[in-house]
Amino acid sequence: MTQQASPTASFAPAELYTQVLQFYAHQMGLLDERQADSWADTFAEDAVFQEAARMDPLLGRPAIRASARASVERAAASGLQVRHWIGMLQVRPGPNGTVDTRCYALAMRTPKGGELELFASVVCADHLVPTRGGWMVRHRDLTHDGFAPA
Amino acid sequence: MTQQASPTASFAPAELYTQVLQFYAHQMGLLDERQADSWADTFAEDAVFQEAARMDPLLGRPAIRASARASVERAAASGLQVRHWIGMLQVRPGPNGTVDTRCYALAMRTPKGGELELFASVVCADHLVPTRGGWMVRHRDLTHDGFAPA
Amino acid sequence: MTQQASPTASFAPAELYTQVLQFYAHQMGLLDERQADSWADTFAEDAVFQEAARMDPLLGRPAIRASARASVERAAASGLQVRHWIGMLQVRPGPNGTVDTRCYALAMRTPKGGELELFASVVCADHLVPTRGGWMVRHRDLTHDGFAPA
Repeated sequence: MTQQASPTASFAPAELYTQVLQFYAHQMGLLDERQADSWADTFAEDAVFQEAARMDPLLGRPAIRASARASVERAAASGLQVRHWIGMLQVRPGPNGTVDTRCYALAMRTPKGGELELFASVVCADHLVPTRGGWMVRHRDLTHDGFAPA
Repeated sequence: MTQQASPTASFAPAELYTQVLQFYAHQMGLLDERQADSWADTFAEDAVFQEAARMDPLLGRPAIRASARASVERAAASGLQVRHWIGMLQVRPGPNGTVDTRCYALAMRTPKGGELELFASVVCADHLVPTRGGWMVRHRDLTHDGFAPA
Repeated sequence: MTQQASPTASFAPAELYTQVLQFYAHQMGLLDERQADSWADTFAEDAVFQEAARMDPLLGRPAIRASARASVERAAASGLQVRHWIGMLQVRPGPNGTVDTRCYALAMRTPKGGELELFASVVCADHLVPTRGGWMVRHRDLTHDGFAPA
């Protein structure tokens, strides 16, 4: 009998795991529904948002809010419905109710009357901090597959 | 300390959440495996199925069954393997064991010997009613991204 | 009142269901991160890996390891970032801590500086055997949509 692989300690409990799933369904839904302000409110006041393939790091919620508003306005102006899917979620509880997560994200969009296009596969690494019965993102690092820094 | 976002009350319990995940894996699997009758049986006798991008509302299980049979026959005749993915699930328990859900759906198909094609991104809003240890869909509303009503 | 569909007995408990989700997120992540040896270690010594669309069955962990190393080397040599998504998971507990699963898998890849391509929709049927606090795959059968045997 070979005994290997994932000790139980590496499995997050079901309640935590499903709450994080629900957090992401809610959070990404806000962005896809173009609620830029509510989206920004899911980030900590001092959050850092890194997405090297697209931009310099965003430092703090106001910068995240401004960026989200611009994205949402571009999507609205061009009639694009954007969708973000999260999958393959890994959850690691940390001290003081914090949670580190790693997941895959797929970004897709459909123009009005047009065809669905999947345009990015991304790995998302988050540090979540607890709020009253939920979380906010303190740190997000998005790594785009295929990104070749200049 | 900024305190915001999702109160605990908005998280469905793990048992409920994972049961709904399993319900959809089972239900969509039936359609993808071309079991139109078993698929129809996951809808309430008086279910309403709305999919404005494709058709007038289907009223009642017999209409849903007839539509599913026609879809399955078309897929079989053209040798297409259809797959429906559900993701980004949100679950809200209601009175008397009912559940309201919202999720994303991706529809894809592969012809025999051919290439995978993702052809629709859809938002699914369901009202589920309890049965002996499971659910049936009482109301389903599918909104296709990019749908531009004539 | 029509009473039908899924008896409770067919729902896996939340802890089991979310542990299997986490097992797959971990396992597929190893392959995507090109850790062929760690990937192989998630299979039982006497595991059988079937993927009729691509190859003859792999018999035993050493064969699985050799195949994974070759895949990973091809991806590295061609600069492709491969991602495997698992979804629509169904979990059936068996005797002695074993678990039978069925899920959908999507295989996608992004070349360096290039575009995301989804290239296969697959159904994965696994037989998992328990290890210290986790599982190993004893049997995996991958069925590619659209596969037309010669």
